[in-house]
Amino acid sequence: MEIEFLGTGAGQPSKQRNVTSIALRLLDERNEVWLFDVGEATQHQLLKSNTRARKITKIFISHMHGDHIFGLPGFLTSRNFQGSEAIDQGRPSDLTIYGPAGLRQYVFSALKAAQVRLQYRVDFVEVHPGVVFQDKQFSVTAFAMNHGIEDYAYRIVEADAVGELQVAKLLNLGLKSGPLFGQIKAGQDISLPDGRVLKSADFIGPDRPGRIVTIVMDTKSNPAIIEAAKNADLLVHESTYDGQNTAMAKKHGHSTCVQAAENAKKAQAKHLILTHISARYLGRAADNLLDEARAVFKNTDLAHDLAVFPIPAKVPVTEKLVKAHA
Amino acid sequence: MEIEFLGTGAGQPSKQRNVTSIALRLLDERNEVWLFDVGEATQHQLLKSNTRARKITKIFISHMHGDHIFGLPGFLTSRNFQGSEAIDQGRPSDLTIYGPAGLRQYVFSALKAAQVRLQYRVDFVEVHPGVVFQDKQFSVTAFAMNHGIEDYAYRIVEADAVGELQVAKLLNLGLKSGPLFGQIKAGQDISLPDGRVLKSADFIGPDRPGRIVTIVMDTKSNPAIIEAAKNADLLVHESTYDGQNTAMAKKHGHSTCVQAAENAKKAQAKHLILTHISARYLGRAADNLLDEARAVFKNTDLAHDLAVFPIPAKVPVTEKLVKAHA
Ligand SMILES: [Zn+2]
Ligand SMILES: [Zn+2]
Repeated sequence: MEIEFLGTGAGQPSKQRNVTSIALRLLDERNEVWLFDVGEATQHQLLKSNTRARKITKIFISHMHGDHIFGLPGFLTSRNFQGSEAIDQGRPSDLTIYGPAGLRQYVFSALKAAQVRLQYRVDFVEVHPGVVFQDKQFSVTAFAMNHGIEDYAYRIVEADAVGELQVAKLLNLGLKSGPLFGQIKAGQDISLPDGRVLKSADFIGPDRPGRIVTIVMDTKSNPAIIEAAKNADLLVHESTYDGQNTAMAKKHGHSTCVQAAENAKKAQAKHLILTHISARYLGRAADNLLDEARAVFKNTDLAHDLAVFPIPAKVPVTEKLVKAHA
Repeated sequence: MEIEFLGTGAGQPSKQRNVTSIALRLLDERNEVWLFDVGEATQHQLLKSNTRARKITKIFISHMHGDHIFGLPGFLTSRNFQGSEAIDQGRPSDLTIYGPAGLRQYVFSALKAAQVRLQYRVDFVEVHPGVVFQDKQFSVTAFAMNHGIEDYAYRIVEADAVGELQVAKLLNLGLKSGPLFGQIKAGQDISLPDGRVLKSADFIGPDRPGRIVTIVMDTKSNPAIIEAAKNADLLVHESTYDGQNTAMAKKHGHSTCVQAAENAKKAQAKHLILTHISARYLGRAADNLLDEARAVFKNTDLAHDLAVFPIPAKVPVTEKLVKAHA
């Protein structure tokens, strides 16, 4: 699991930062990529990245401002050709787009104007606060934000991975690999012919807790962020302004770097990445946002276009305890 | 007068070539820039150019395919801020957009979805074959093309400049600068008190002929191109395919580099620039298109993103004759 920042600027593109798009790369987990927001020229940024458009299966839109959606029609159109002409062949996967009411109409009216016929299926899911997607592996929950327009933060929760069968331990008891092992793994307790009872739980390793990623785009700082980011392994938080501009941020429905850090701290998040940086902060001025945030929440990073951050798998619960006591 | 290629690729952006947009820079002539087509990320290309978005007063759209229009909503939105925040202050100028029926609805539905309120006025003119714009200085005429969708080539004609008053000649006759000079310049013949008659025509230099620029975007090669490009000082012609791919070009409603050159030759154009190059022609492969075209029409160039070509003022008619006889 990795997160890639395709665009990290606010409002308009600048030479340093394109408008917003974030790729959550779930290649090991499900050989898929999920996109969060699709500002203009997201398809151009993908040309510079090794994320393949045809692997993108879900797109989540925070809100309908142009710097978050104007790349969608072009992305969808070009993706038509990115199965057959890409280095590795194959049709692009079908796609589900999650976003506020009106998104479907916006997209289809642009595609209709340009007479585009997509070669893959696109489904739209109208987002309301609550769970918007769930399968055995992941859930995505939307939280209403505060930006003067319908607007959502997304909390992505990976399911806990069930512990692995401790094969060595069973072999040490003189047992041989076979259907028995499968039964134990499936949670059955087993009585052996010699009278021994094998409790399944004794031979299954600890669960590996799933990861939590929260993506908070354009919004005035508000308490729902803390709920959305509770215990997150990674909180991506808009940071349009520096710590001196709290009033300006509030007026324009945005957050400061310091508010982002305070939210990360209150939510007990483990890692914070600042993005959606105003073009007024060039070079060292943007690093200043990072310094201000780190003074409040140490484990903070600043996103740059095309930066990739790993979201490492967690250590299984008991190993963690053992380590803590070692 | 200069022409700048903001995007020179066909269909989809590539690392070398963005999708189509062309800026006709009329800075000396009227302190304006006219844009032809606005593919996605045209505003990004403008960031790398010294053409100012706020100087763009007219946009002409050839046809409604995505690679020619998907940059419009973002361009219009960002332009809102490019008067007040640019280095030289001032509101962006009002804008007129010329294009096929449906363009207006496409643009406004995108702006409405994103809740954009433009701070300048935008008028739409629905294009049909014939003159679409005319003032004392320039006319623009649309020619229907052949691309499986409503599609236009544009012929831009500069009015001839009236010759200058030959002041030195009048002074040599012992006359003094004054209202008399203005009357002669205005075309009046003058009888002097001493009986001499000054014929206005004898004291006005030769007219400087206006320039003609023709822009032919996506189309199957067809006879209307020759009419549109008749005697053009510059013909910009789409050249999606090489000379071997005539059948493919025809099938997809496009032209080859050789057809572009043949059209330039038949139209007696003075200069040809090839653009809208398929991404299959990288590096030297694109130069091959140029070589093939030059074999038919010598004064051909190949456009690259951000390339600027001057369109020099013509020599006044009689000076030209003098030079020719010298
Ligand atoms: Zn934004
Ligand atoms: Zn095209």
